Amino acid sequence: MAGASIAPTPLLKDELDIVIPTIRNLDFLEMWRPFFQPYHLIIVQDGDPSKVIKVPDGFDYELYNRNDINKILGPKASCISFKDSACRCFGFMVSKKKYVFTIDDDCFVAKDPSGKDINALEQHIKNLLCPSTPFFFNTLYDPYREGADFVRGYPFSLREGAPTAVSHGLWMNIPDYDAPTQLVKPRERNKRYVDAVMTIPKGTLFPMCGMNLAFDRELIGPAMYFGLMGDGQPIGRYDDMWAGWCTKVICDHLGWGIKTGLPYIWHSKASNPFVNLKKEYNGIYWQEELIPFFQSATLPKDCTTVQKCYIELSKQVRAKLAKVDPYFTKLADAMLTWIEAWDELNPSTTTTA
Amino acid sequence: MAGASIAPTPLLKDELDIVIPTIRNLDFLEMWRPFFQPYHLIIVQDGDPSKVIKVPDGFDYELYNRNDINKILGPKASCISFKDSACRCFGFMVSKKKYVFTIDDDCFVAKDPSGKDINALEQHIKNLLCPSTPFFFNTLYDPYREGADFVRGYPFSLREGAPTAVSHGLWMNIPDYDAPTQLVKPRERNKRYVDAVMTIPKGTLFPMCGMNLAFDRELIGPAMYFGLMGDGQPIGRYDDMWAGWCTKVICDHLGWGIKTGLPYIWHSKASNPFVNLKKEYNGIYWQEELIPFFQSATLPKDCTTVQKCYIELSKQVRAKLAKVDPYFTKLADAMLTWIEAWDELNPSTTTTA
Repeated sequence: MAGASIAPTPLLKDELDIVIPTIRNLDFLEMWRPFFQPYHLIIVQDGDPSKVIKVPDGFDYELYNRNDINKILGPKASCISFKDSACRCFGFMVSKKKYVFTIDDDCFVAKDPSGKDINALEQHIKNLLCPSTPFFFNTLYDPYREGADFVRGYPFSLREGAPTAVSHGLWMNIPDYDAPTQLVKPRERNKRYVDAVMTIPKGTLFPMCGMNLAFDRELIGPAMYFGLMGDGQPIGRYDDMWAGWCTKVICDHLGWGIKTGLPYIWHSKASNPFVNLKKEYNGIYWQEELIPFFQSATLPKDCTTVQKCYIELSKQVRAKLAKVDPYFTKLADAMLTWIEAWDELNPSTTTTA
Repeated sequence: MAGASIAPTPLLKDELDIVIPTIRNLDFLEMWRPFFQPYHLIIVQDGDPSKVIKVPDGFDYELYNRNDINKILGPKASCISFKDSACRCFGFMVSKKKYVFTIDDDCFVAKDPSGKDINALEQHIKNLLCPSTPFFFNTLYDPYREGADFVRGYPFSLREGAPTAVSHGLWMNIPDYDAPTQLVKPRERNKRYVDAVMTIPKGTLFPMCGMNLAFDRELIGPAMYFGLMGDGQPIGRYDDMWAGWCTKVICDHLGWGIKTGLPYIWHSKASNPFVNLKKEYNGIYWQEELIPFFQSATLPKDCTTVQKCYIELSKQVRAKLAKVDPYFTKLADAMLTWIEAWDELNPSTTTTA
């Protein structure tokens, strides 16, 4: 684009909701005020519904606690986790917007190497609005970025790219480690700012973290189910991983891209590794079977919508993972309930199915 | 590695050759002197063999011109391109070292964002000596790097990684664009230093550039054939691409990794886009068929060595690409000749086959 000027990133302020799962007052929003205030927030209150969550003045929000979830979904509320940040996916379901950005309440504004505050949401919007390149690797990273392009040897037929369904952001300071790694490296901090956005290639799984994540809800929303975690479940801290594996398989099948890299947020504090170990130990063990399952999962051609793909995936979970643990039969049921609930609350999107 | 000190990178000075294809005096080595002088250079002189190539004092080198290549390989010299930097692969063949680093003579020392000279070779050695992670994507890039690790959700069974066969470095200043992109963006310069090394996932092809490239010759050497390009051939500037596609398919089959990212070199001048267009036009057209061919190429289980893989690949080239152009039959022949010549010059490596 020699000499061309770069168009400003659209704010999409009427097309994007910010979903925040929380158990505490949302003071962290003060730091985000310059970036988040134009947007509508959906707050999913986890834990005791009688507790009052304080939201700083001036933010436009709706808040759902467990009582609200039960009232809205009735018996289908069983698919929404309790006492786990997996409950955030309820917010994805009740949103009426095209895009969703979700962030944890211990995440703050990070600075780029020049010392400037990073507008994480703006970068996510950039990522979502420009295509992905899942079919061939570009060594200079995102070819659509200013100052970059496709390198020599990149097939011209693939240069239009694919629609971007997901933008996965990263974390300065406390990296997203599992409990064993937290225990082994208690003092490790992420200080490396990698100035890149890239597409995760087709056929490759990745660990999707829900801490700093945006997606095209109209495109991939029904796949963003964070599973059964936390209270009454034998597993925690695999909610976003589960959503990521399902989402990646479905995006690969439907020809959509997932980007990772920028933007960074500042992750302020490490969760307790001993508590995490208790939540994770089954997941750490089970994922050795889950990864091969998702790596070899294929969806039939007639799965032309996310809902159809997701229902098919739930069948495969039931058929192939029940042997790992009876939990997966329950999860397969919940996956179906989730889709039913999604379609009930989003009748217009079902018609495109 | 909380508190652990980082071991210095081994120099490998008796285990690595630097291969340089050239048609001119090697003044560019002056800038590389602090980094390259401990190593042995293999210079492959392209074009008129009567021309004398001046090498700055103090470098330890051997130099081969076309007459030498013809003398050493006899009729098999037909597989080595003439008047094209593809001739560099002759240097890979005559090397007796475990590792090879190859660099173009218009590449200079780049600076990192702090202004420090980048020791490209040291970074390549680091990349080659530490494992790759081709089977699952790590969102914090190279998990073995200081200050990084595998993120939550990365299967523990995959954390040992795979042997690294190739280290693909990048370029500041003039990016490696094809002729059409050069023509459209004549003033584009790469100014973005992305501080990352990553593994290209299994099953994903990439455009391998030969300008700043290192590899484990003992592991993958016989796949590093740069094809028939330049003089008397209908194609140029696809030598490294061809080597990269073959190498990636074989590394995927044998379970080895390819890394890309750091180190950067400073690429000083863009080649003539009009000349490049003439060299490339067939490749630009043909690659639309070559990419699907390599994407779907599978090697049988009994291909347990690089040589066997490469011979099998040559058969598939002959069977499936001859319809694209008769050139590919000639190339399939040359691929076999290359392996014969490799085995003749490297008898010890054939016994491991």
